[in-house]
Amino acid sequence: MEKQRVLTGITTTGTPHLGNYVGAIRPAIAASEDDSVESFLFLADYHALIKCSDPALIRQSSKEVAATWLALGLNTDKTVFYRQSDIQEITELTWILCCNAAKGLMNRAHAYKAAVQANEAAGEDADFAITMGLFSYPVLMAADILMFNAHKIPVGRDQIQHVEMARDIAQRFNHNFEEIFTLPEADVGEDVATLQGTDGRKMSKSYHNTIPLFLPESALRKAINKIKTNLLQPGEPKDPDDSTVFQMWAAFASADETARMRREFENGIAWGEAKRQLFELVNDELAEARDIYMRLINDPGHIENVLLQGAERARAHSVKVMQKVRAAVGIAAIR
Amino acid sequence: MEKQRVLTGITTTGTPHLGNYVGAIRPAIAASEDDSVESFLFLADYHALIKCSDPALIRQSSKEVAATWLALGLNTDKTVFYRQSDIQEITELTWILCCNAAKGLMNRAHAYKAAVQANEAAGEDADFAITMGLFSYPVLMAADILMFNAHKIPVGRDQIQHVEMARDIAQRFNHNFEEIFTLPEADVGEDVATLQGTDGRKMSKSYHNTIPLFLPESALRKAINKIKTNLLQPGEPKDPDDSTVFQMWAAFASADETARMRREFENGIAWGEAKRQLFELVNDELAEARDIYMRLINDPGHIENVLLQGAERARAHSVKVMQKVRAAVGIAAIR
Repeated sequence: MEKQRVLTGITTTGTPHLGNYVGAIRPAIAASEDDSVESFLFLADYHALIKCSDPALIRQSSKEVAATWLALGLNTDKTVFYRQSDIQEITELTWILCCNAAKGLMNRAHAYKAAVQANEAAGEDADFAITMGLFSYPVLMAADILMFNAHKIPVGRDQIQHVEMARDIAQRFNHNFEEIFTLPEADVGEDVATLQGTDGRKMSKSYHNTIPLFLPESALRKAINKIKTNLLQPGEPKDPDDSTVFQMWAAFASADETARMRREFENGIAWGEAKRQLFELVNDELAEARDIYMRLINDPGHIENVLLQGAERARAHSVKVMQKVRAAVGIAAIR
Repeated sequence: MEKQRVLTGITTTGTPHLGNYVGAIRPAIAASEDDSVESFLFLADYHALIKCSDPALIRQSSKEVAATWLALGLNTDKTVFYRQSDIQEITELTWILCCNAAKGLMNRAHAYKAAVQANEAAGEDADFAITMGLFSYPVLMAADILMFNAHKIPVGRDQIQHVEMARDIAQRFNHNFEEIFTLPEADVGEDVATLQGTDGRKMSKSYHNTIPLFLPESALRKAINKIKTNLLQPGEPKDPDDSTVFQMWAAFASADETARMRREFENGIAWGEAKRQLFELVNDELAEARDIYMRLINDPGHIENVLLQGAERARAHSVKVMQKVRAAVGIAAIR
């Protein structure tokens, strides 16, 4: 039986944080170990350009994201790990798919509609400050997916629409020309862990409440100590289900250890003590990877090499697919 | 002084006809002989995909268009003559420019607005049957132009807007990142000859009134004989300024010969005789090129080679420009 191909993109516009680790990186690395699947994982730097016009930030983020996944043990013999912008065929396919994608489909994209709503609420023109990058990125995403004939795209609920659009565009191309593209399916994680940030809201770059994944040990301790708590004293029972400290504990601890901490909360553990134990737990899980991460960050040439090797493997697919696509639409060599 | 760089694209969706020859091909080849300019000329096959989903037609048209320009004496030592889809950097630049192009700019593009108007007149959704290819092709056109830092883009009045959009996008990129792109200028031909078709309307594929440029001699004679005239008899004076036969004569004849034919019309030349002379004139101008064209059409490998050599010369520019662009936006190698 053909292996299920699973494809995941990571936008390179920030430093990976604990929320990314718990919600995306750790489960993706675990899933990539499954022998029944073939994983494609890429740094989505063309996507990063939509939101970010700071080249230094994109460069730094690409390095940090790549080093993070490698440090956490991504097996690059199994997983095809590449940088989107190394695959020259991606933007070519994007253009060809543009010619097969209805503009009306893009009008209905959530991200675009949200931007229009925000403009209208602010009394601006509907399309104020909206670029063609933002408007057309579902087509780029379709190219990412269809290029590798991926079957499953692990996504959050807010991303299901993108996979549906890729399906729609693939169907239209297959119908107009040739059955070249696999129709992808969204694989919605049922129990994706999200992590609260230091202020108790969802951990997110845009809230400035993140804890970077590979902070040096002392900085990690400080960051965890700064997690917002209430004013309950040692000895007073605390509600674990209303606590960022407990929620973070649960994201890192075994079931047994989680049950134990739940009892400690009910028994009135001091916040300082709970945070001390949380720091130990998180630090234990990350310490080894952090050492590797630091070595990698100081050896960018190695990261670059790994990505170039991944690109070579990815291009073994993309070059062939594009030959078929070019022939199908009529832009092959003259004969 | 730096040579002025002039860039022209030819969409590959049809067989070149006498109107293309008189209005575009002949003047462009003449202009490319000017030693003060450097000409870039390309087969716009990515553009062809917007309007045409018939791969056989695009393939055939690419061959015919390339053979036509070569047969008519385009000097490919001087002019960089290439096929758009051989320049891998074009679609990559298109994506990067998308991230710097306002969607509002595209909303105002003539071709898009015309399609919306037609939909609304027909009681359809505004965006009915409009693809992302049609909507975003001004960005592709900007990439075509900016990639080669072209100064002058020879265009008809209806195309001025595209050059202005390319300018706008270039300015925005230069401002956001680095001064990489030359700001292009539209070069509007003041006295571009247009030719009437066999039915007296402007010669155009969409009116089905064209005379293909390299019809075999006997077919050319027949096509010219079919040009619509009025019922005036031999000996009756005829109005040259209301005659497709005379207008076509003027497009091929010298000033002296044009003046002579004007007198012949006033003296009541028979339509049959006027058409016979017109056929001789057109045939004399095209006969030699037609022979070369036929040889080329039967030697597609040669055409392909010429285009690949052109692509190599074009890529000597595009690869360098894209290295700068990639570095400027932050998607260069990790270091």
